Amino acid sequence: MSSQAGVIVAMDWGGSWARTSVVNHAGELMWTTRVPTPQGTGSENMLRVGEEALLQAISWCQSTPILGIGIAVAGPIDVESGIFYTPPNLLELNGISLIEAWQDRLIYPIHIGNDATLAALAEYHLGAGLCQRKVGRDVKTLLYLTISTGVGGGVIDRGNILLGAHGMAAEIGHIKIDTSSSADLCNCGGRGCLEALVSGTAIARKTVNALSNRSETTILKDIDITRLSSQDVFTAYSAGDSLSERIINEVISDLARGISDLIHSFNPDLVVLGGGVTVGLSTTNLLGNLKSQISDSLMSERHKDFEIMYAQLGDSSGMIGASLMVQSSLQDI
Amino acid sequence: MSSQAGVIVAMDWGGSWARTSVVNHAGELMWTTRVPTPQGTGSENMLRVGEEALLQAISWCQSTPILGIGIAVAGPIDVESGIFYTPPNLLELNGISLIEAWQDRLIYPIHIGNDATLAALAEYHLGAGLCQRKVGRDVKTLLYLTISTGVGGGVIDRGNILLGAHGMAAEIGHIKIDTSSSADLCNCGGRGCLEALVSGTAIARKTVNALSNRSETTILKDIDITRLSSQDVFTAYSAGDSLSERIINEVISDLARGISDLIHSFNPDLVVLGGGVTVGLSTTNLLGNLKSQISDSLMSERHKDFEIMYAQLGDSSGMIGASLMVQSSLQDI
Repeated sequence: MSSQAGVIVAMDWGGSWARTSVVNHAGELMWTTRVPTPQGTGSENMLRVGEEALLQAISWCQSTPILGIGIAVAGPIDVESGIFYTPPNLLELNGISLIEAWQDRLIYPIHIGNDATLAALAEYHLGAGLCQRKVGRDVKTLLYLTISTGVGGGVIDRGNILLGAHGMAAEIGHIKIDTSSSADLCNCGGRGCLEALVSGTAIARKTVNALSNRSETTILKDIDITRLSSQDVFTAYSAGDSLSERIINEVISDLARGISDLIHSFNPDLVVLGGGVTVGLSTTNLLGNLKSQISDSLMSERHKDFEIMYAQLGDSSGMIGASLMVQSSLQDI
Repeated sequence: MSSQAGVIVAMDWGGSWARTSVVNHAGELMWTTRVPTPQGTGSENMLRVGEEALLQAISWCQSTPILGIGIAVAGPIDVESGIFYTPPNLLELNGISLIEAWQDRLIYPIHIGNDATLAALAEYHLGAGLCQRKVGRDVKTLLYLTISTGVGGGVIDRGNILLGAHGMAAEIGHIKIDTSSSADLCNCGGRGCLEALVSGTAIARKTVNALSNRSETTILKDIDITRLSSQDVFTAYSAGDSLSERIINEVISDLARGISDLIHSFNPDLVVLGGGVTVGLSTTNLLGNLKSQISDSLMSERHKDFEIMYAQLGDSSGMIGASLMVQSSLQDI
């Protein structure tokens, strides 16, 4: 990439961090910074902190032309207006449009998208999708799942982002995986959602419940249950702990049911797993097991023709996806 | 449309009929014919009958330029190669490519797509979507369900057909609606699929089971159960039959669960119901009930911002969608 082609200022705004970077045409982060999201300080201060991070990035660029600003946000957002709709991790920004708040002072065109959707776009072009192409396998349709505190996702079909009417397609944490009346409650108010069964929160909750109900030997029993995380369960799993094994196997089985439904819906040839829980999952050897459980539930050989792999771009995927969104908007003109 | 702009020869090939038409730029059928699909006569004869119908349409056009041939088929098909993959209703064509079989003799470029996907495209531009636009409501993302012997679907997102890697996205009959181990068996070999619970076949099966198990009064009890169809159940429902009411209410509840999952996946602002069972459904007043049951399960206000209506193009939707696919391929060039 030549500097004349210009760069993109990208931000990924989540519940914990606002990450900002300058990204070149090849999707490489040339400069990056992060500031804690100032939760609880009011929307005005939240907006000021975000704006300052962007101004810092803009200032870093000096005379290099800036093609636009791309922002990936955690939560439901209207992609046209940029208005947040009750974002669970950025609640103070509910009803606010970052475009409206920032456009005047930041000058460059601002594009906003959902973080999971943009991570999907980044993985499609420059992450897992690129890995597949490097080994000679074409990727047409990518389904990205992010499994951490919650569960989200994104779909790229033949280069197009599946947006949905309000930019809220692939809200895959809330498809139903357990339809029994006693299924686990979800944050959304429903029962048996994918998020309620396989998220980090769900894994921790299942484990705490099991610890309080069972007398069996487990290396987790001395852990402070108020701080128990899914990572502890994966660590115990790797150490051969039978309680953790039972819980993780249940999670794999539920995840397989969820992904099967999603494959019937989206027919991806590449399924990419990102987010903190999948970092834990990657320390196990369960990916092959997961894939075969998924395949067993699929209705046709063509639906079974998919690969599954871990995300390749880590915490940068939202920013890289945001920069690709800006590039793609320039091509549309 | 001026005749100079050219016309499209379109076919919709299902298990019972091969419908063929000449369609103008506005999606109007200028000429149409149908021949029974010669099931059981071998693939060579099947192909000959289809080809003859297309040649008849081509011959009708006389000197009017033909822009291309669009074919909607019942069953899984690879959209690039045109190869059928185990189409349940056209099994003799398994492994055959209509493009390869016909391209040489038919001269005009042949485009092939799944019938439900192309019906979705037709409803988006010229059916239910057009109705919504006429009353001033924009439609960005349309989810189409066809509920008849089986259950299929299609999604159009901001004008783009959601294809999936093999053109088999929106295989929505096989998302799981009942995850209990005793859930009804589906033709795909799974249990609790949407198709196993709300298709015409499922409604008839539920009714026959209920008739054999119950001693209650029902106007259906004198019917020949080997010929009982979902339409009989809807007719009995409208006459106030309590057994039919219970079955139809169960179907509405299962359909609502399925559509909720699909709305989380696709975020449509318009859900369109087509197929024989919805013709039965339209004789009841249950659409509002269905909509409110769907809304109750959705996780955000924005997902609840959708309309639901019956398909507007009837049996012509596949052919109209096939003609739109050809038009769209010309714009890509």
